[in-house]
Amino acid sequence: MSLLVVGSIAFDSVETPFGKAEAALGGSAMYFSYAASYFTPVRLVGVVGRDFPMGTFDEFKARGVDTAGVEVADGETFRWRGKYEGTMNVAETLETKLNVFGKFTPKIPSAFRSTPFVFLANGAPATQRSVLEQVDAPKFVVADTMNLWMRIAKAELLDLLRRVDGLILNDEEARELTGERNLIRAGRAILELGPKIVVVKKGEHGAFLFSDFVEFALPAYPTDNVKDPTGAGDSFAGGFMGALASAGRVTLPALKRAMAYGTICASVNVEDFSFEAMRRTDRQAIEKRFEEFLHFITL
Amino acid sequence: MSLLVVGSIAFDSVETPFGKAEAALGGSAMYFSYAASYFTPVRLVGVVGRDFPMGTFDEFKARGVDTAGVEVADGETFRWRGKYEGTMNVAETLETKLNVFGKFTPKIPSAFRSTPFVFLANGAPATQRSVLEQVDAPKFVVADTMNLWMRIAKAELLDLLRRVDGLILNDEEARELTGERNLIRAGRAILELGPKIVVVKKGEHGAFLFSDFVEFALPAYPTDNVKDPTGAGDSFAGGFMGALASAGRVTLPALKRAMAYGTICASVNVEDFSFEAMRRTDRQAIEKRFEEFLHFITL
Repeated sequence: MSLLVVGSIAFDSVETPFGKAEAALGGSAMYFSYAASYFTPVRLVGVVGRDFPMGTFDEFKARGVDTAGVEVADGETFRWRGKYEGTMNVAETLETKLNVFGKFTPKIPSAFRSTPFVFLANGAPATQRSVLEQVDAPKFVVADTMNLWMRIAKAELLDLLRRVDGLILNDEEARELTGERNLIRAGRAILELGPKIVVVKKGEHGAFLFSDFVEFALPAYPTDNVKDPTGAGDSFAGGFMGALASAGRVTLPALKRAMAYGTICASVNVEDFSFEAMRRTDRQAIEKRFEEFLHFITL
Repeated sequence: MSLLVVGSIAFDSVETPFGKAEAALGGSAMYFSYAASYFTPVRLVGVVGRDFPMGTFDEFKARGVDTAGVEVADGETFRWRGKYEGTMNVAETLETKLNVFGKFTPKIPSAFRSTPFVFLANGAPATQRSVLEQVDAPKFVVADTMNLWMRIAKAELLDLLRRVDGLILNDEEARELTGERNLIRAGRAILELGPKIVVVKKGEHGAFLFSDFVEFALPAYPTDNVKDPTGAGDSFAGGFMGALASAGRVTLPALKRAMAYGTICASVNVEDFSFEAMRRTDRQAIEKRFEEFLHFITL
């Protein structure tokens, strides 16, 4: 089944102990789309500025990403500059220029409105909600979020959480949202806020799945080659939602496999800057890594 | 098969956000022995001062821990005072009085010398090595260590690593020992130093097993009730070595199950101060938690 994603399209300038990338392609919706496209057709909604080379999308279109929902607005494309040091678990933001993304009002093309699987990438909760008002009874909606919205738009975020099926966020965000230091308590507390499933991403430490009917944990895939963590969370979400949409049903086995595919996509993404490592990877290589991962986690 | 442990016996004073314990029973060899005793007979070698109430050992003897290797020395018992805050992942040491443990020279009783499984709890590498010189061709020897020895006794530690079958240490210690920030690289690099297996403990994030023939990862058991992490690493090691000794053979399935039993023992231990939570637990409760854990990790 097809999968709609609404989120950012950006140019990222990133420095890590292993090199740097200057104004490379990035953005939550782009990482998500690329990863999801290993599994299922993707419909992309986002905004770029006049400076964005539209040929960039050719590669995405060739992968089954429908970019009809990308709006070109007056102004410049979203730009982010950041740095990772040490264990690279946390990005230090050096500069954020929201540019056209700052005034982004998603318009869902009518051809996209009945998409069964929907992902609301990180953004203002009110903006994320505006997407829900434009889609027709989707089967499964998952949102991402970040600390910023817990601080400046808590009420809107809580409202959103009552309207989505799932929430994906990282460990520190889960702690901040709930005030619980213990991650297990934090994950369970988020379920009380509305979502039927909660995925807590822990970077190199893997991810948790919480729901009322099952709890599940996976370590990260054991890559010894982490060059740039930018987009890891969005690649995880893309693999997760892509695999679920491909399964077409949100069952317990499908959720668990989707967690593993999300893990694999994130592990590929971090092995190089921007989209380089994902470009070198195909579905067959994903499946091979999935099999290796099974050996790594199976008792 | 039986299991020998050589390590510390202490009084710990601990404060966490959930309460405090004053001069409560602790020490690496004690936590290890208690956890291992769920699985197999244990032989304990350590030292206490004249202040130590010898009746303390009655409970351990009743659990199959042979305390014939405990020496009573002139002076006071090892005392540690520490504090945990926030996520409680790191202890802040407020006071360490090694007392009789500072001059500990392990003497292995002749009846203990042919014990097939041996655990060298954290201590000076030269002291750990002295144990190896007193035992007769053990089947499987695992050592623990800590950052201190990497700084003040690196040569002795490297010498020890060439003489043991396995090393258990935490993530920060693995990074410091190898200079590798990436934990996968760090674990593999330690194998190059001699041990056939390396277990890297990551607290709330679980544990890795590295060897030349398999790599394996487990998340922590999802307890939402962490009151005091003191002894978690030693309880993990006790469950791990106890389960291995009980299996009697160091096979791949036995290693993986031992990792899971170590995880379970640590999860029980952290649920209360000192030995309180382990005292409320029996082998049957351990098996129940093991089954729950299987559901938690199985794809």
